[in-house]
Amino acid sequence: MGVLVVGSVAYDSVKTPFGEVEQALGGSAVFFSVSASFFSKVHLVACVGKDFRPEDRFLLESRDVDLAGLEVIDGETFRWKGQYSGDLNEAETLETHLNVFAGFQPKIPEKYRELDYVFLGNIDPTLQRQVVSQVKAPRLVACDTMNYWIDGQFQSLMETLKKVHILIINDTETKKLAQEANLVKAARKILGWGPRVLVVKRGEYGVTKFSLTPSRELSVFGVPAYPVEEVFDPTGAGDSFAGGLMGYLSGTNRTDEEAIRQAIVFGSVMASFNVEKFSLDRLRELTFTEVQFRFREFLDLTHFEQISE
Amino acid sequence: MGVLVVGSVAYDSVKTPFGEVEQALGGSAVFFSVSASFFSKVHLVACVGKDFRPEDRFLLESRDVDLAGLEVIDGETFRWKGQYSGDLNEAETLETHLNVFAGFQPKIPEKYRELDYVFLGNIDPTLQRQVVSQVKAPRLVACDTMNYWIDGQFQSLMETLKKVHILIINDTETKKLAQEANLVKAARKILGWGPRVLVVKRGEYGVTKFSLTPSRELSVFGVPAYPVEEVFDPTGAGDSFAGGLMGYLSGTNRTDEEAIRQAIVFGSVMASFNVEKFSLDRLRELTFTEVQFRFREFLDLTHFEQISE
Repeated sequence: MGVLVVGSVAYDSVKTPFGEVEQALGGSAVFFSVSASFFSKVHLVACVGKDFRPEDRFLLESRDVDLAGLEVIDGETFRWKGQYSGDLNEAETLETHLNVFAGFQPKIPEKYRELDYVFLGNIDPTLQRQVVSQVKAPRLVACDTMNYWIDGQFQSLMETLKKVHILIINDTETKKLAQEANLVKAARKILGWGPRVLVVKRGEYGVTKFSLTPSRELSVFGVPAYPVEEVFDPTGAGDSFAGGLMGYLSGTNRTDEEAIRQAIVFGSVMASFNVEKFSLDRLRELTFTEVQFRFREFLDLTHFEQISE
Repeated sequence: MGVLVVGSVAYDSVKTPFGEVEQALGGSAVFFSVSASFFSKVHLVACVGKDFRPEDRFLLESRDVDLAGLEVIDGETFRWKGQYSGDLNEAETLETHLNVFAGFQPKIPEKYRELDYVFLGNIDPTLQRQVVSQVKAPRLVACDTMNYWIDGQFQSLMETLKKVHILIINDTETKKLAQEANLVKAARKILGWGPRVLVVKRGEYGVTKFSLTPSRELSVFGVPAYPVEEVFDPTGAGDSFAGGLMGYLSGTNRTDEEAIRQAIVFGSVMASFNVEKFSLDRLRELTFTEVQFRFREFLDLTHFEQISE
């Protein structure tokens, strides 16, 4: 039982208008795991260098994340340096040192192969496919990607998409992937390529979900972002979102429309907490009571009454 | 009974990736009036030149819009020429000929002075104030503005805001007006200046409403935009939105939170229809049954279930 995640573990140096951190724990697999751990058992597949700090391993263990798939390789852990300015919507990458992540070949521990829920973090689409092929009969595979792979590995990405049920990407990536300026048209195109659900992350504007009904009609769900007054550090928001989403589905063992909508709201809840402090600082102190409370705030945020006929 | 609107009547020449129209009926007061007329009696205050076409007057009359406040002045009607490209989010103005609109001094017919609902379209804030001062005891005054007035008439605009209950502006204008990159902070600031409700239009991302509860806490409501696959012409979307919003409040004679939320959804419904064809072409053929149907689609678009405790 639980959700398998493959992705990066990184040390991030981040500067925002509100301050900066040096070599703070980060990476897609870490944000995803900590977020998803509020809802489900998480099994991680990633690699780190010999410099991976015991306290960072401890954080993941304290969230009951299964680290059997965390490979320790001779060398240094992946490092990313970036900064955000103005409205904090876009990160500017200053430095990327892949280090041990450069030769990463995900190895799925035997006991992970029975898992039903799989999240493919933003890595080379060929590696994403290797991971899926090692899992016996996953019930739900979700996947992230980025412009770098859309530009450089389009054909490989298309192959991966055939094996993916839920594609979770941002607005720009959606339009670029489909080569369509209109999001609805872009969604229709992408839903013809494999994924049966497309979840578009739109930052401060919220999330839009597209899927096809059994009669091939487009079904759309939209939820605004939680109004955060102090966005300290957006790093990891997308992976926290995916963690909340997949964690909820895995934890409830549901894949129906109603569960996916609730999962998107839980994802939005987790992303909104994540940006309130640097790195994992907010998620590490978060309680499930706070998560439930914010879910209910989302009900109020979006509520309006039916009109009488 | 009904809603008073002051604004422009124009002939628009518009080019989009889907085609172009020459000298089509437009202007903030026109889009507002036709949209609001689905919900309420509308009383218009504006001016046109001698060239105003009988068929355009007929369109407004066919929607039962009261034209007692439509002044005909020697000269030509206001003309605007613009184009949209790419994702149709931003208009590029090619030509503006104010013509008779340049010397516009809104005169409120005696019988309009008892009206409870007032919409101040995007005109000089000094003129907006003149209109409000001519209405005896309005229950609800809503107002639009634009960067041009925020930059050039800031102090006058601040005076106008003191007399306004609902400010309806877009994302960029909100941040510019408050000089704040964070929308929530910007909203808090603006709500300290007079308006008790701020409605932020965010185009394809939907609408966010901010207001203060009696205990001065921020209350937020967010609704996504209707997923329109063919945005033909965004001209007038903002005024159609305001028309649906104010028309619904005026028609139901309600100003409570629940009504405002429904009104925002009706505004979104009207804006989504407006962009489906050029000029007034979609609104002129629209039926109230279609409006109600799309309102219900918004319920489905935004619906998710509470979680069990």
